[in-house]
Amino acid sequence: MRKRKLEEHRAAAAQRMGTPRAPLYLILDNIRSLHNVGSIFRTADGFGVRKIFLTGITPVPPRPEISKTAIGADEVVEFEWMADPVRAALVLREIGVPTAILEQTDRSISIYEYSFPEPLGIVLGHEQIGVDAGVFAYASAVVEIPMLGMKHSHNVAVATGIVLAEVRRQWGARGAAR
Amino acid sequence: MRKRKLEEHRAAAAQRMGTPRAPLYLILDNIRSLHNVGSIFRTADGFGVRKIFLTGITPVPPRPEISKTAIGADEVVEFEWMADPVRAALVLREIGVPTAILEQTDRSISIYEYSFPEPLGIVLGHEQIGVDAGVFAYASAVVEIPMLGMKHSHNVAVATGIVLAEVRRQWGARGAAR
Repeated sequence: MRKRKLEEHRAAAAQRMGTPRAPLYLILDNIRSLHNVGSIFRTADGFGVRKIFLTGITPVPPRPEISKTAIGADEVVEFEWMADPVRAALVLREIGVPTAILEQTDRSISIYEYSFPEPLGIVLGHEQIGVDAGVFAYASAVVEIPMLGMKHSHNVAVATGIVLAEVRRQWGARGAAR
Repeated sequence: MRKRKLEEHRAAAAQRMGTPRAPLYLILDNIRSLHNVGSIFRTADGFGVRKIFLTGITPVPPRPEISKTAIGADEVVEFEWMADPVRAALVLREIGVPTAILEQTDRSISIYEYSFPEPLGIVLGHEQIGVDAGVFAYASAVVEIPMLGMKHSHNVAVATGIVLAEVRRQWGARGAAR
């Protein structure tokens, strides 16, 4: 079975370059690790995320450690830094984009059961502390990935990929993918 | 919204400890990076993977670099090393477990379109080279994650999370989740 050639991918990517990305946003709230931020940029690009808001202590490109893990995706996905994640949620609300927080709480809904709206912003929080408490008042939903093993959470970059894949699956199933 | 307490998770995890894991397996074929292997162990635990086959140059626990990224999941998920990934696929076939390869080829099917069987083994390959050509003859399917951005692939650990989440979603939707 022939492996897909890089040139074929490049042709498809070049076509996409001319069209606006889907209304899909991330808010990275106090993500500590350069490695995780780089990995999230790469993952976000793969799912056609339009823009990433970096808030609080989240490291901001250009940084060699981010670029290495991002394999350069930090140069193709739009981003903006602001101190307060609430401000980022409000910026999205002003343009009609609801937000969903990824966090395990006493009322969080499985990502498989929640119907992700389009447009959408997803809020990811600090590796240990989670998302800033202030953001919850502005979020339309809190979602979680069901944990089936011994450890209590996924790595935040892996979790980002899981949630973005489910959002894209749902949008695609609804015929809304672009 | 109250964050879920670690104690609640631990109680659920302790309950799960007594029951066998779902028939879900990974074959890691020549994964080069300790970081990726550690991350895959953590992710595999989160989706209740029963066993990981490490083949070729894939580093094998115990290694401090694996354990750190795995947050100790390398001590709770069963694993076995063998030189040849084909041998691992055959071991699974002998116990009635078909395998699906994750790779972009000219005939790979979107993970959203393929109906993942239960039981299942998923084959993940080398970060650059992909899965050993010999394994394709023994796989029931080749699946891919649709790429919607500029970069041509996901990180292998993130990709593992994306595929495992989709498998679990499908099994759950079919009422087969355990």
